[in-house]
Amino acid sequence: MRPSGRAADELRPVTLEPNVSRHAEGSCFVKFGHTHVLCTASIEAKVPPFLRNQGQGWITAEYGMLPRSTHTRTDREAARGRQSGRTQEIQRLIGRALRAVVDLKAMGEMTMTLDCDVIQADGGTRTAAITGAWVAAACAFNRLVRARVLNASPMRGQVAAVSCGLWRGLAVLDLDYAEDSEAEADGNFVLTEDGGIVEVQATAERRPMTQREIDSLMALARGGCSTLFDLQKEAVHG
Amino acid sequence: MRPSGRAADELRPVTLEPNVSRHAEGSCFVKFGHTHVLCTASIEAKVPPFLRNQGQGWITAEYGMLPRSTHTRTDREAARGRQSGRTQEIQRLIGRALRAVVDLKAMGEMTMTLDCDVIQADGGTRTAAITGAWVAAACAFNRLVRARVLNASPMRGQVAAVSCGLWRGLAVLDLDYAEDSEAEADGNFVLTEDGGIVEVQATAERRPMTQREIDSLMALARGGCSTLFDLQKEAVHG
Amino acid sequence: MRPSGRAADELRPVTLEPNVSRHAEGSCFVKFGHTHVLCTASIEAKVPPFLRNQGQGWITAEYGMLPRSTHTRTDREAARGRQSGRTQEIQRLIGRALRAVVDLKAMGEMTMTLDCDVIQADGGTRTAAITGAWVAAACAFNRLVRARVLNASPMRGQVAAVSCGLWRGLAVLDLDYAEDSEAEADGNFVLTEDGGIVEVQATAERRPMTQREIDSLMALARGGCSTLFDLQKEAVHG
Amino acid sequence: MRPSGRAADELRPVTLEPNVSRHAEGSCFVKFGHTHVLCTASIEAKVPPFLRNQGQGWITAEYGMLPRSTHTRTDREAARGRQSGRTQEIQRLIGRALRAVVDLKAMGEMTMTLDCDVIQADGGTRTAAITGAWVAAACAFNRLVRARVLNASPMRGQVAAVSCGLWRGLAVLDLDYAEDSEAEADGNFVLTEDGGIVEVQATAERRPMTQREIDSLMALARGGCSTLFDLQKEAVHG
Amino acid sequence: MRPSGRAADELRPVTLEPNVSRHAEGSCFVKFGHTHVLCTASIEAKVPPFLRNQGQGWITAEYGMLPRSTHTRTDREAARGRQSGRTQEIQRLIGRALRAVVDLKAMGEMTMTLDCDVIQADGGTRTAAITGAWVAAACAFNRLVRARVLNASPMRGQVAAVSCGLWRGLAVLDLDYAEDSEAEADGNFVLTEDGGIVEVQATAERRPMTQREIDSLMALARGGCSTLFDLQKEAVHG
Amino acid sequence: MRPSGRAADELRPVTLEPNVSRHAEGSCFVKFGHTHVLCTASIEAKVPPFLRNQGQGWITAEYGMLPRSTHTRTDREAARGRQSGRTQEIQRLIGRALRAVVDLKAMGEMTMTLDCDVIQADGGTRTAAITGAWVAAACAFNRLVRARVLNASPMRGQVAAVSCGLWRGLAVLDLDYAEDSEAEADGNFVLTEDGGIVEVQATAERRPMTQREIDSLMALARGGCSTLFDLQKEAVHG
Repeated sequence: MRPSGRAADELRPVTLEPNVSRHAEGSCFVKFGHTHVLCTASIEAKVPPFLRNQGQGWITAEYGMLPRSTHTRTDREAARGRQSGRTQEIQRLIGRALRAVVDLKAMGEMTMTLDCDVIQADGGTRTAAITGAWVAAACAFNRLVRARVLNASPMRGQVAAVSCGLWRGLAVLDLDYAEDSEAEADGNFVLTEDGGIVEVQATAERRPMTQREIDSLMALARGGCSTLFDLQKEAVHG
Repeated sequence: MRPSGRAADELRPVTLEPNVSRHAEGSCFVKFGHTHVLCTASIEAKVPPFLRNQGQGWITAEYGMLPRSTHTRTDREAARGRQSGRTQEIQRLIGRALRAVVDLKAMGEMTMTLDCDVIQADGGTRTAAITGAWVAAACAFNRLVRARVLNASPMRGQVAAVSCGLWRGLAVLDLDYAEDSEAEADGNFVLTEDGGIVEVQATAERRPMTQREIDSLMALARGGCSTLFDLQKEAVHG
Repeated sequence: MRPSGRAADELRPVTLEPNVSRHAEGSCFVKFGHTHVLCTASIEAKVPPFLRNQGQGWITAEYGMLPRSTHTRTDREAARGRQSGRTQEIQRLIGRALRAVVDLKAMGEMTMTLDCDVIQADGGTRTAAITGAWVAAACAFNRLVRARVLNASPMRGQVAAVSCGLWRGLAVLDLDYAEDSEAEADGNFVLTEDGGIVEVQATAERRPMTQREIDSLMALARGGCSTLFDLQKEAVHG
Repeated sequence: MRPSGRAADELRPVTLEPNVSRHAEGSCFVKFGHTHVLCTASIEAKVPPFLRNQGQGWITAEYGMLPRSTHTRTDREAARGRQSGRTQEIQRLIGRALRAVVDLKAMGEMTMTLDCDVIQADGGTRTAAITGAWVAAACAFNRLVRARVLNASPMRGQVAAVSCGLWRGLAVLDLDYAEDSEAEADGNFVLTEDGGIVEVQATAERRPMTQREIDSLMALARGGCSTLFDLQKEAVHG
Repeated sequence: MRPSGRAADELRPVTLEPNVSRHAEGSCFVKFGHTHVLCTASIEAKVPPFLRNQGQGWITAEYGMLPRSTHTRTDREAARGRQSGRTQEIQRLIGRALRAVVDLKAMGEMTMTLDCDVIQADGGTRTAAITGAWVAAACAFNRLVRARVLNASPMRGQVAAVSCGLWRGLAVLDLDYAEDSEAEADGNFVLTEDGGIVEVQATAERRPMTQREIDSLMALARGGCSTLFDLQKEAVHG
Repeated sequence: MRPSGRAADELRPVTLEPNVSRHAEGSCFVKFGHTHVLCTASIEAKVPPFLRNQGQGWITAEYGMLPRSTHTRTDREAARGRQSGRTQEIQRLIGRALRAVVDLKAMGEMTMTLDCDVIQADGGTRTAAITGAWVAAACAFNRLVRARVLNASPMRGQVAAVSCGLWRGLAVLDLDYAEDSEAEADGNFVLTEDGGIVEVQATAERRPMTQREIDSLMALARGGCSTLFDLQKEAVHG
């Protein structure tokens, strides 16, 4: 029995609220249960130095946690003067996930920055961030199309992510903090709507996993993402 | 005629939503029009080195803006590796404002950290932050009293803040960004409910002010804060 | 009775020695009693990025304290690797004060940097710095006029500053360290010679102030600055 | 045909030279073809703060590249003043991999730091680092046993790692730089000798992967690691 | 003919004004011509971690240049966030020089910090700093003796320093900036009053030196320091 | 009797292995006994800002120690976020030494960076680094000549370095760590093959030196470097 009473293959209640920011080109406030992340997509008409004059765009991501998004207060990274390794790992993951489904050539020379800021944390912040960032990015591209900056959206497909893990020997979907903190293993799965695998990061925390276990996590992830893809479509197309 | 159509002595619609954070000891989501700030109060059972073994508590504040809280995206301070002078100035101001109404001796040896994070900015973020931080702090102290950690709340009174400025020659209350960016002068006024002045910071941006002008800003501030004190009471006491 | 034996409205002995630096375009060694600050004005033929190609100049300030300018040694900011919030607050204040009396358009595309370094501290370093920085700036502009780089000095008037505070219930002018460390409230007043108010920063340290008290501080400041304006004139014009 | 002429399931020539450092408690110079990494294990009789007085040890890792280990010179991280996100990601991975096979309780209160410094890079530096770090760690524990600091080695099994990827549609083992820079997808697989999976990190670079592809990468990884486990045994037991 | 009209073996006018700081335990304002350095000695009743509980003291030095001590303005190190290599090199040199003439054991567990801040620079700042730092240190120790903190001064002898160089083929004493910037070679010589050599740092800037040349620089240094030792005695003993 | 059994004027076994790096334009692995340093020379077709458009080249050096090159582990400078004063002092010394024997004008507008990384330390790392860096630089220039990027090597002569010191009253050549840590004085001597002196840095650690002692160190250094020059020639010309 999971702490939340959920079935092993049950997501937390997920909501994706688009266009919550007055200023950003695209935005989404995503909730996976008590995990709340604000995702904004910002467009700038320039590319990083290594891409200059190549006629293509770039997508990058930044991630942060509000100091009291966590159970006990976490030091503010701006005050400490450096981002942690965990933060950098996560923002690199979000950036790769989004670039996997966007035609960077079709973007032209612009940069989209996806800011994913955790307002409240209860496990699974990085997968919520990827799922919400896709909505923010899609909204921003649609806006550029409406504004006739782009002829068509360079978004080639949907990407979403979910965590799965082994908790007390059971493979479970979408771990919350109570499960995550005592899981034997967990993984983050970034998938595309057409069944493709963008990224798998699975880590054994207490004992090595078997092939069978990792396969069962993948199966759960496919189920969970299938629901997320539907919610994303609704959020973007209403 | 102000850009927002408000009267010269009219606040923006202000809401103070208490207890929005699942984890923080106290919290408040404050809106001054389109300026939205999340304030959380975190309690830790220790004091900074300079206060050790003196039997008193401490209150400190941190301030941050989400990168896309602003009209165009602002660099993330955690990524740049340092907090700006403006950020430090504001968080010092918030800390002083709250310490002015709390009996630090009555707190005992604990530290309250007020995190004020701007989710969306439209002028007046620091005054919204002070006003909301008071609610977060009051809620946190009340919770400690209910949990019998403290016998009584060390909160000795209310503190709130509002900005006033000279815009096209007119003294106006609670400037939004459109006014702020072309004001001749503006000031932040931090007041207590019983008529005391905690802090005045008034700056001439385009031409020096007269004594008469600064007096009219103070009068507007008193009026604005009087409304804010009522809203704070409602937020804390329901 | 003040610790120094001064009357409530009496400045410390103030001297403004101009042109003390062999290298700087303008300079002033200012003493407010035992508070000694070296102010230099440096001219560079460029402007910061946000002003490029706008045909106007810029004035900025930096502030520092020698490690043993203080009663006990203070850590060197260069060694710690960051400037404190207090330092940044002060240098922003000095910059605003000077920009308030200079016609930036008339400067042309050049930057003046005012370095205010505290050689010895005994309270009131920021107000001494502003008062001396005006002399350094005025000397530098006069030198550019003599060198025919500028047709006329872009200095439109005088600016000076003084601190006032409530000490044992008494409103006193120009607090020294002994008074400052036990004041109930204090403020920094930046005024122009023609009676204008550039900046007011008044803070209650132990209890909120009344309107009457803040008014009495302002009155003291006007008196003190009137003396400072005379000393500035003498320093610049001999 | 791979650039190196290797078969799809063929490792580069791998050597693991133990005890190369005069000072370190354990060490290994590992070569995967032209990728050369020096791994040292250093023991200190203390644990990080979060583990104090819990009667267990800790293993951590640091990773670095010499500036000219790469094809063109890379900036020195010590000179830039910060470690890149990539560096932090890798050193966290190495630490997790080693902790997965060590009985931290049996270590007692000591910390082992595994420094993995890339002397020359040609792809696969992180997997070479993990494979060599295991040898360095095993040697260090054996030395502590010989010195009677420990009764028995807390090493519970072997861990090794290898990269696999999709290169021109072909699943290949142990990518070198030429392959890595144009791979469609690649993954790092950290396995234990008894068939357990410690970590999988698979990323699609140019197009999402299928389940079948990811399975074929895993199969290659199992084959590669099986050779690495034999080489590790030889290196440690001679 | 030297730019200053001095003879090859002639020092610039040197003054050593002791006890210029109201706060520091010892101080000296040293002038070597237009090079002006404020040296303060601060005493703290603690030692750095590596010396704890060894019953001995420590002497360390810090060095800085005011931004406009130089011909054109130099960036403020506190603002850049790091001390330059040159600064660190110089402050390490000053510390070694002073430690060479102090009986650290006789100091007891205290730390003396010598802050050497360049108010105006015209070549030879580090040698002026060492020469003045000795006076500041001697005054501070004498004060501790008078205050009966120490039984006797732990100062075992005098140390002074001077630069010498090859300028247009000529060996000259105490280079000013005009000479220094076009010297073929120059050196800093740190000597004790009884003829001992504490440190020699000689560097060829444009062509290697001969043994004969380096010997002639040393001879000039001995002559120059002999004058400096007399001035130091006068400064300390009046 | 020296700890190593060497005669007072005897170098440790020295080897200079050229061209050890697959990627660098020039390289040398230098061993002075148990001190091992990898030196690489990297060429980039640009110069630092202060040399732009002056038709000349630049040579700079960076120095680092692997964390476990030392007897006990040293913190990684990249992790601490700053290079120590010692590191900066050494890399500045290496840069000056190499620039002394290269015709920067003849290089054209390119920068050579000499990375000297200590793989294992046993005293004398900076002198080994200079001696090896010269080989790396010479190899790199020869390669540019063979590739017809340069008409002739801009290397005008050889430079090498060795440390000498006073150990138990005896002047000894090429101190190892055991000697260095208890030496009364030591110095680093950077010499050219034709008898020129590029740099002398001699420091008294426990008592001032006499002129006679410093002369004897210099004599030892000349003897030691004479051997190093032969080994360098062999390394470069085979």
